[in-house]
Amino acid sequence: MQGDRNKILIESIKRLLRRGATSHLLNIVRKTHGADLSAVFPLLSLSDQHKLFDMIKDVEQKGILFSELEEDIFLSFIEGLDMDEVVEILENMPADDVADLVGRLPEEMSDSILEKMKKEGSEEVEELLRYEDDTAGGIMVPDFIALKEDTTAKEAIESLQKEHMDVEMPFYLYVVDEYGKLVGVSSLRQLVVVGPETPLKDFMTPDVYSVQTDMDQEEVAKIVARYDILAVPVVDETNRLVGIVTVDDVIDIFRQEATEDILKMAGVGEEFVETKSVLKSTRIRLPWLFASCIGGIIALFIIGHFESSLNKFAFLAVFIPVIMGMGGNIGTQSSTIVVRGLATGRIDIRDIWSVVLKELSIGCILGIVYGFLIGAVAQVRYSSTELAVSVGLAVISSMAVAALVGSLVPMAFARINIDPAVATGPFVTTAIDVISVFFYFVIATTLLGI
Amino acid sequence: MQGDRNKILIESIKRLLRRGATSHLLNIVRKTHGADLSAVFPLLSLSDQHKLFDMIKDVEQKGILFSELEEDIFLSFIEGLDMDEVVEILENMPADDVADLVGRLPEEMSDSILEKMKKEGSEEVEELLRYEDDTAGGIMVPDFIALKEDTTAKEAIESLQKEHMDVEMPFYLYVVDEYGKLVGVSSLRQLVVVGPETPLKDFMTPDVYSVQTDMDQEEVAKIVARYDILAVPVVDETNRLVGIVTVDDVIDIFRQEATEDILKMAGVGEEFVETKSVLKSTRIRLPWLFASCIGGIIALFIIGHFESSLNKFAFLAVFIPVIMGMGGNIGTQSSTIVVRGLATGRIDIRDIWSVVLKELSIGCILGIVYGFLIGAVAQVRYSSTELAVSVGLAVISSMAVAALVGSLVPMAFARINIDPAVATGPFVTTAIDVISVFFYFVIATTLLGI
Repeated sequence: MQGDRNKILIESIKRLLRRGATSHLLNIVRKTHGADLSAVFPLLSLSDQHKLFDMIKDVEQKGILFSELEEDIFLSFIEGLDMDEVVEILENMPADDVADLVGRLPEEMSDSILEKMKKEGSEEVEELLRYEDDTAGGIMVPDFIALKEDTTAKEAIESLQKEHMDVEMPFYLYVVDEYGKLVGVSSLRQLVVVGPETPLKDFMTPDVYSVQTDMDQEEVAKIVARYDILAVPVVDETNRLVGIVTVDDVIDIFRQEATEDILKMAGVGEEFVETKSVLKSTRIRLPWLFASCIGGIIALFIIGHFESSLNKFAFLAVFIPVIMGMGGNIGTQSSTIVVRGLATGRIDIRDIWSVVLKELSIGCILGIVYGFLIGAVAQVRYSSTELAVSVGLAVISSMAVAALVGSLVPMAFARINIDPAVATGPFVTTAIDVISVFFYFVIATTLLGI
Repeated sequence: MQGDRNKILIESIKRLLRRGATSHLLNIVRKTHGADLSAVFPLLSLSDQHKLFDMIKDVEQKGILFSELEEDIFLSFIEGLDMDEVVEILENMPADDVADLVGRLPEEMSDSILEKMKKEGSEEVEELLRYEDDTAGGIMVPDFIALKEDTTAKEAIESLQKEHMDVEMPFYLYVVDEYGKLVGVSSLRQLVVVGPETPLKDFMTPDVYSVQTDMDQEEVAKIVARYDILAVPVVDETNRLVGIVTVDDVIDIFRQEATEDILKMAGVGEEFVETKSVLKSTRIRLPWLFASCIGGIIALFIIGHFESSLNKFAFLAVFIPVIMGMGGNIGTQSSTIVVRGLATGRIDIRDIWSVVLKELSIGCILGIVYGFLIGAVAQVRYSSTELAVSVGLAVISSMAVAALVGSLVPMAFARINIDPAVATGPFVTTAIDVISVFFYFVIATTLLGI
């Protein structure tokens, strides 16, 4: 449905641009959310992008469009714009989105823009650019409502009417002491419910969840999700309130982190490459496959080592795929469970041994089940008990080792602060392939006495 | 940090329970968020769970704990509770959470609970249970503020003070006509900013995004994320306002859908199994590995078919792992990009041919790169140009076909409304294994003239 609406919008806009139907276009543009316009942009020529952009009369709508555009589209589009216009748009955007955009621009451009944003907006943005991108400081907005403890409900409402018109999410009123330190929180709703002369300290909640500027964005997101709050206040080392992280950014963080994890596990970098060109995608995916290539070449030399056995018993080769496949698949299961479990907090990094032991047990049980099954196939097909036993044992050991490696490697990486999702993907799979093949040939040549 | 705090909490509670330090415990429990208490529960014996639960004095805190507990923990815990107490807790919870919990209970229990909840709460819950679990109707809350167009700002504030105390998220005021149909939206903030006598229709926004009760929850979540709103109103077929979906539920939906997709792609069911017992996990993972087992057995018979060639040229076997590995890994890359792209809206289901063509091109380019590399290894190791060419061609065709199958299968499944994440995982990998092995032996036996 969403998709259909977009399709209709895109086609109308393209048609009207072709016909030069300005008044129609103005009307559509006015009624369309910036987020929806951003979906149209990649499908237009650069000159049509500018034509469409000029029809947006509302500077805030332009800002939303800016923050929703894909990075490469945004960069090529902004080059053709007058810098004064860009600055005007940025000044009307939330400071965290501005910091995000400015951080992506080439340095000369971002410097000149920051210089032009002389007003308070610019200081805020420069302030935000000081923090690491993916920390609470990097994603917070400095627009929040902070009031003293003895402010009355009526005074608070008056200050909302006069001063805080540009605050993005005015649902929480933070209460601070004379040094700007966070002491409590109240809600807009409580303001209208209590008597007008009640001071904030009488109805504020003193237990307020806050995060420090250097906390990782994923941790921040987990706190917002855990306590079902709409924003979390960010404080500096001295507990002074410096910003808030809002729930809409939390949604973006979760989606972005999930995408990153999924892509890393599959060995396709961190960022979504589908929209990039064929050559660019190829370049990103090439190195990850190299791990698999090296693993395959190692397996090649291992099997080559057993060539004389293969010369006598060619049928040994027949079971290579099934042994590799079983190991690879159970290894993927184990590592996926661990990586996602760590990301969602279902698995604790300190439980490394109990998690690995559990995966190993599962690997052994499943190994025995499939070892018997595939061993039976070997017995029926080649009527050799030694071969059947070798194949069965190879399946068991390959699956057990795969479950062990698949769970141990990401847990160990997480423990030394390396992203476990990277450890998964091609590396674990390749390691398991090599180990499986090795075990199989050692077991088979021993049992068959070659 | 979050983890550390939990650990400390868990250990304090366990220690105090052992010591029977009731007054200490009462104090900790009072200050701890229900979501944090829920993390302690799985680590306690059933009798300690009840002891701890009895110390919670706040009925809303009990409700939060209920909705945060894992399903199996909740089911075993609730059996030992008095039904009247359960009903009292449920009556103080948001209706969507109640519907969620009641939906999980055994039928006799849920029937008797619904019967006891005679008051308006119960009707709401029964109403919600009518809708499919994962639709807008199933996740909405029926608590919202709906006012007529000619209500003044002052009257609206008064109604907030008197009637709508139990509304979960009172940030939007929905404006309805005399039939209860949605005509606009205003915010709590606007209420306090405009003059007290201004009627809603003068400052409401008539363009309000809404969704119908039967919309899939993932679509609903995407709309909330796209327009950065805190709640989206849900309407029935006649545009009558029946509920709202709030942003905290949207976060849960995104996290849950991402987890489901990741687990499905790895072939470990849909739900997180790590917390389940070894046997339960084994049972869930067993059938998914069967696909891989069947694929391996097919590969076994394919290679068996070429046994006479293998008897002459045993070194053919040596290249099986590398060819399978390269195909498998690029296939995983392609299918992951497509599955995640479809989930996040980066890829449109209608672009099937351009996406598949692009993946095929990438597969061909990467195939040529690695085909040359691995062919060169074959040449150096076995000094046979025919073998080197066979291996190179097998790598190219295996990688090209893998990219094709890996992108085409999830796109095709999505098109006929089958979840593309299921199509990925073991099925695609196994299909690619079988195809790779087949191509390799056909090419090699042809070129080597056997």
